[in-house]
Amino acid sequence: MNNIPISSDLINYIVKENGLPSPGSSSIREIVHLVDLIEAKTGIKFVRMEMGVPGLPTPSIGVEAEIEALRRGVSSLYPDISGIAPLKEETARFIKLFLDVEISPECCIPSVGSMMGGMASFLVANRNDRTKEGTLFIDPGFPVQKQQIKMIGHDYQSFDVCNYRGNKLRDKLESYFKTGKISSLLYSNPNNPAWICLNEDELAIIGELSRKYDVIVIEDLAYFGMDFRKDYSIPGKAPFQPTVARYTDNWIMLLSSSKIFSYAGQRIGMIAISDNLFNRSYPDLLRYFSTDKFGHSVIFGALYGLSAGVTHSVQYGLAALLKAVNDGTYNFRDDVIEYGEKARIMKKIFTSNGFEIVYDKDLDKPVADGFYFTISYPGMTSRELLEELLYYGISAISLDITGSEREGLRACVSLVPRELFDDLEFRARKFMEDHPVKNK
Amino acid sequence: MNNIPISSDLINYIVKENGLPSPGSSSIREIVHLVDLIEAKTGIKFVRMEMGVPGLPTPSIGVEAEIEALRRGVSSLYPDISGIAPLKEETARFIKLFLDVEISPECCIPSVGSMMGGMASFLVANRNDRTKEGTLFIDPGFPVQKQQIKMIGHDYQSFDVCNYRGNKLRDKLESYFKTGKISSLLYSNPNNPAWICLNEDELAIIGELSRKYDVIVIEDLAYFGMDFRKDYSIPGKAPFQPTVARYTDNWIMLLSSSKIFSYAGQRIGMIAISDNLFNRSYPDLLRYFSTDKFGHSVIFGALYGLSAGVTHSVQYGLAALLKAVNDGTYNFRDDVIEYGEKARIMKKIFTSNGFEIVYDKDLDKPVADGFYFTISYPGMTSRELLEELLYYGISAISLDITGSEREGLRACVSLVPRELFDDLEFRARKFMEDHPVKNK
Repeated sequence: MNNIPISSDLINYIVKENGLPSPGSSSIREIVHLVDLIEAKTGIKFVRMEMGVPGLPTPSIGVEAEIEALRRGVSSLYPDISGIAPLKEETARFIKLFLDVEISPECCIPSVGSMMGGMASFLVANRNDRTKEGTLFIDPGFPVQKQQIKMIGHDYQSFDVCNYRGNKLRDKLESYFKTGKISSLLYSNPNNPAWICLNEDELAIIGELSRKYDVIVIEDLAYFGMDFRKDYSIPGKAPFQPTVARYTDNWIMLLSSSKIFSYAGQRIGMIAISDNLFNRSYPDLLRYFSTDKFGHSVIFGALYGLSAGVTHSVQYGLAALLKAVNDGTYNFRDDVIEYGEKARIMKKIFTSNGFEIVYDKDLDKPVADGFYFTISYPGMTSRELLEELLYYGISAISLDITGSEREGLRACVSLVPRELFDDLEFRARKFMEDHPVKNK
Repeated sequence: MNNIPISSDLINYIVKENGLPSPGSSSIREIVHLVDLIEAKTGIKFVRMEMGVPGLPTPSIGVEAEIEALRRGVSSLYPDISGIAPLKEETARFIKLFLDVEISPECCIPSVGSMMGGMASFLVANRNDRTKEGTLFIDPGFPVQKQQIKMIGHDYQSFDVCNYRGNKLRDKLESYFKTGKISSLLYSNPNNPAWICLNEDELAIIGELSRKYDVIVIEDLAYFGMDFRKDYSIPGKAPFQPTVARYTDNWIMLLSSSKIFSYAGQRIGMIAISDNLFNRSYPDLLRYFSTDKFGHSVIFGALYGLSAGVTHSVQYGLAALLKAVNDGTYNFRDDVIEYGEKARIMKKIFTSNGFEIVYDKDLDKPVADGFYFTISYPGMTSRELLEELLYYGISAISLDITGSEREGLRACVSLVPRELFDDLEFRARKFMEDHPVKNK
């Protein structure tokens, strides 16, 4: 199974025969498709790090609650668009217990995954003021959010945060906000793909500027609690997950269930809107919605128009999962910490064989071990490295498509079983032998 | 329980106390909310005809298939955005067996309800040609589809079809198409709310003009097979559900599971795109998507960006339901025909007590009995009738909001239990006694 490297002729043949773009300029889905084909052709099991998908089963609490709801007959009844009451209540409780932030259940609304949460946020937040134009993204980031903006005809800007950490963040943000064109600011914390985490000082800067320039902050918490350097998993006890909500009342949080509860298949997330923003009136919303109220426009405008609500049985599943963590009867960290442990080992394997971690520092501390890490190889561009690694049975995606200004790849640990670590070690060493590092 | 009429003072008090708009200008949801409040205050059980929701349980075939998929662990795995293979295959088979139309499984894609099906269709179909502007709706229709268009900043036009049936439809449609501004045409067949059904001649006209002017036809089949004058429920046997797909290759069908399978809670529908349209290239799509291919833009552009796919377990549920009807082991008509039977009785009760059916003819034939019917009362506007009927414990929605040019109300039969028919009879008679018809 370690017939490595695979011949470049074979891979080129597969690429051409299937009309695929060159691997270096492929999207995530195209890489997935190509690697499926190479695996089928060669019988070699790849170290697959290209997809950001959960690698654990859903906790049975959620699955059983869904099944119970199905047996009760919820499948025939349209779900309340604003969400079933227990889900709204448990979400507000979760935000209080794990983020130490007050929010009304009314302001916690289910969406068909955080993908829809982002879309609904853009549709309303970027249309609340006719003099503004769109979203500022703190990059690197999740490329699909920019595709969403493009698809609905809004505008966006972005910058790579890595050169603007700490106090430098203030001037950089202000340079955009001062134009008066920024409706909303989006970032993910922890960051996908760099896994850096904005700290309390940086969040305080963001909060202060969001108030000064009246910019809505969209905080994407897709990887909630996965900065494993701290334990954010004890209900009602510090430390709490860092959030901008402590520094402004002009925020939306996107809470995904996909990673924290390995619930990606069922497509549910929560949009939490600060009470202040939820109840605020923006006359310019009337251009696109039947009301000037922000929260009402998100629910009865955007979410109604996108899907008329979220799968009924799944709402009961997520409510049960949240109740269990709120009650302290289930600790999500005990499950997902496996990602962090795998990251530690895999990073070691790469760095022992000539690779470097692209985003290795989080301000002055080493970056956390989590769901993603980033690698580069001396003297190679992102594209070259991506293509070359394929010959060695290793797949990942290029940092190019994440808005990063650095050369390298994003690697996700979730789908790499520990049984493949020996193969990974062998392949990484072979790669280094075949690509001796110059200038060292 | 028949303390009828309810005092207008009481209802006015409830309206004011809860900050509701006057009933005559209320949305569906506002009427629902108001009637909930009146029922709670008076203890009177209303004849509730305002909501278009299923009133039957989901067939157990679907529920059990969902539960089985959950037990197999699909909840942790992102679903394929283009849909799981068995669902795609059974949908293509369904379209062949019940509409007598050929389509590849590849072109059958799940959406989070037909609400998302419409949204995804607009996002792509209305952006395929920079010289065109939006959708033409054949009214009366479902008001939310126009809200969707407004929310994403597209344009639309509409006309009430009732004055343009048969051959008159050609000139009317052509007057819009000739402007060169129409990207897509949308209608529902059977029609919500009028329950008229475009016939083969009319569909042939639409097909011909769609080819001549290169307009994409979006056929909303939310009430598939519910023109109970014919039996469209035998797989592979005529008569087949009428469809424009026999007259053009420039079509999208929206197949809802909400009514035919009483599956509204789980939010799944199918978008079926003709093979020709699916594979067509439109360079102008590159303004909004990463490809110029129509089908690829719907799946990896619109549907990916809206929700990253449809709840995994639900895809197995719908696949099982479709397989059962395709195999002939389950006949959906045996269940939903109850709606038609209730409509026949309820229409009789109203017409025996001075009411009239607004849309009573379907060309030269009486309109079918189905999920909806329309009523008016001599000398009363839509608003007056809606408000007055509330005093008699009867709720419905105004035709105003459906694009109809006629005065009257839309009534849905699904949530009215047969046990209430005696009350309905009593209340309708009392209404007539209190509102003697002048000029008769």
